[in-house]
Amino acid sequence: MGKRSSRDIRSESRLDVLHALLSAGTSTRGELAQVTGLSIATVATIVQELRGEGLVADAGSSALGAGRPTTMLRVNGDRGRILGIDVAETYVRAIVFDAALEQVGSVEVPMDESLPSVGSVTESIVRAVDTALSETGVDRAHVLGAGVALPGLISAEESADAVAPRWAARNVEVLHRLRERIGLPLVVENPLKAIATAELWFGRGRTASSMVIANLGTGVGAGIVLEGKILRGATHSAGEWGHAVLVLDGRSCRCGRLGCVEAYVGAPGIQQTLREIAPDHELARVPQREFIDGLARTHRESGGDPVVEEVLERTAHYLGVALGDLASIIDPEVMMLTGWTAWALGDDLVDPTKAELQRRAPAGATTGVELGVSTVRGSSVAIGMATLAFERFLGDVGLSTTRLPLAL
Amino acid sequence: MGKRSSRDIRSESRLDVLHALLSAGTSTRGELAQVTGLSIATVATIVQELRGEGLVADAGSSALGAGRPTTMLRVNGDRGRILGIDVAETYVRAIVFDAALEQVGSVEVPMDESLPSVGSVTESIVRAVDTALSETGVDRAHVLGAGVALPGLISAEESADAVAPRWAARNVEVLHRLRERIGLPLVVENPLKAIATAELWFGRGRTASSMVIANLGTGVGAGIVLEGKILRGATHSAGEWGHAVLVLDGRSCRCGRLGCVEAYVGAPGIQQTLREIAPDHELARVPQREFIDGLARTHRESGGDPVVEEVLERTAHYLGVALGDLASIIDPEVMMLTGWTAWALGDDLVDPTKAELQRRAPAGATTGVELGVSTVRGSSVAIGMATLAFERFLGDVGLSTTRLPLAL
Ligand SMILES: [Zn+2]
Ligand SMILES: [Zn+2]
Repeated sequence: MGKRSSRDIRSESRLDVLHALLSAGTSTRGELAQVTGLSIATVATIVQELRGEGLVADAGSSALGAGRPTTMLRVNGDRGRILGIDVAETYVRAIVFDAALEQVGSVEVPMDESLPSVGSVTESIVRAVDTALSETGVDRAHVLGAGVALPGLISAEESADAVAPRWAARNVEVLHRLRERIGLPLVVENPLKAIATAELWFGRGRTASSMVIANLGTGVGAGIVLEGKILRGATHSAGEWGHAVLVLDGRSCRCGRLGCVEAYVGAPGIQQTLREIAPDHELARVPQREFIDGLARTHRESGGDPVVEEVLERTAHYLGVALGDLASIIDPEVMMLTGWTAWALGDDLVDPTKAELQRRAPAGATTGVELGVSTVRGSSVAIGMATLAFERFLGDVGLSTTRLPLAL
Repeated sequence: MGKRSSRDIRSESRLDVLHALLSAGTSTRGELAQVTGLSIATVATIVQELRGEGLVADAGSSALGAGRPTTMLRVNGDRGRILGIDVAETYVRAIVFDAALEQVGSVEVPMDESLPSVGSVTESIVRAVDTALSETGVDRAHVLGAGVALPGLISAEESADAVAPRWAARNVEVLHRLRERIGLPLVVENPLKAIATAELWFGRGRTASSMVIANLGTGVGAGIVLEGKILRGATHSAGEWGHAVLVLDGRSCRCGRLGCVEAYVGAPGIQQTLREIAPDHELARVPQREFIDGLARTHRESGGDPVVEEVLERTAHYLGVALGDLASIIDPEVMMLTGWTAWALGDDLVDPTKAELQRRAPAGATTGVELGVSTVRGSSVAIGMATLAFERFLGDVGLSTTRLPLAL
């Protein structure tokens, strides 16, 4: 039931100030006090602590208004570098950020095996980190931390592996090996938590108090934020909405079950919908990213294609129902769609999904929920992991004791 | 992002001490310190405050061990009376509790109309309260508070009512009228939150940190507890799991949508399953409580009835899938079943449901979740509402500032 001491409250205030400064770019103490709701005296003390760690620096002075100029502050990007690492099913992407969480460089290495083992995952991560650091000319001693997003439920075959049936077990093993090989302070998390963190720091989460972030790509899942905190779950598996049942005893899912949400609104699921409508369509067999881009392009062409329209309509139906279930259970203030499928299809998918979501909520529970596409684009998993590594660094230097990811 | 002051922490400590004392019946200061994790000095201070309000009294002394006898404490039931009121679809039940939350008396009055209006709901509640107080001989001045559970989503017809489409709007109106009529300190809540409160104080929630309480009756819904706190939701509708979709475009539900969980595992839904298997079965048209009792009785008879077995099997399948979805999204430590259907069918339903839940979770997310039938029986909604009214009373006398229900 976690009691919080005044020390914890102080830690949160420091995060709030940093958060506000990162969001604003540059800011005065007075503006930070206004945004965070803290007193100017508290902000001044916190700024002094953060300057002591080299995390905040002057950014000139503001001469606005009648009074004497006030000092503008910024997060000091040169304080160090942070790595955000997205371990996907076919590649590992490592992105180098500065301490103001601005991207400095990025590399992508392919995953060695089609069914990744603990060993091959570890090797690919190590190679991505080494390449990213050498390409950006960053010294290891200058790296404040690295955050690695490891996917949870991957496939029935893998989950049947007696050695590592669950997220924690397998990922503890990967983390253990990475610790030996990488020589950097490490944080390991589920990509859904990474996406939720990115949305909390840089997206809609800056002002929403409860939020569901639905990630649409090959797989689908949801990050859940309640009272500004990420829901982790008793076994670290909260938000595995992709394997909730949408159609009882429906399409088979790669997790081994039937009728999962992912089998209908994951990119391969959407392609399956197209194949059910028109097995010989030109988009029926192309690779999944090409398929999603093809859907978006065809939809926007004048004339259009009735098959594509039917696919978008059915997908919005599936997605609206599935999001409606999440909304019924969690009752969030905001739902954001993210991931490459959401970015490619954008409002072409959001608008009919929103209509479906509201149509399905006559009793009011989900009528008022805000639905949109996340403004955090490109590498939200890596951005989120870098942010989590940054939070961990703040803890290591005594500036934070809360919001840290599960210690593995 | 709710900051908590040390005053809040103190409030929680007071609730923890009261909670521990209610659970134990009688206890020493040392035992209370052990159970709550607070220091003996803190417990002594809190006990003094609670004695000051007449909430805690001596219960003799314990002569165990070698030292001098230590004073046993108990919650002072005679401090006052508390009302817990369960507004169901066809009746209002008012239960009178003492300040130690022991039941003193109970009355039930029928609801006047089949489709209750704000006016008829108010009148039935007033009549139930008046009758309960006069039958138990309790003076209004001696009542510390009353808690009223008002159901949320009732029916498509009612929700289509332009005046009160949502929980908050209609219930604010009922509360407003009750304030004028009842003359007692009032708390209004959703029955799911009441059930979750009862489970937190008197059931499995005393030791679980995250928990889903699935209520199975005419309707179904879930109370969700995270880190010892009840999830309310942005529009006060969290846990409306009964209207999540189990079968896409499936059976029509009384909420006006298709394929809701409730249409399969609510008592009328279970009876519908039986009618689909055997339309002319002797249980096909009996009233719903009689139907559920009939299922339980027939199942336990030697010989049995293949139709009843098939109904239980399918229901466990539906319930396992629906609970699996909840578990995937929330990832709780514990799931408890409650409500009259769960109590009647008990382990006959729980064991196959548990098997289904685990079968559907090959990837591990829900494998470890504990599933059981709640030990809080009979009137968990009324017990929970009385507890919420008790918490409100503690706030009114300055002994608590947290965990109070939404102020309406
Ligand atoms: Zn699946
Ligand atoms: Zn329904």
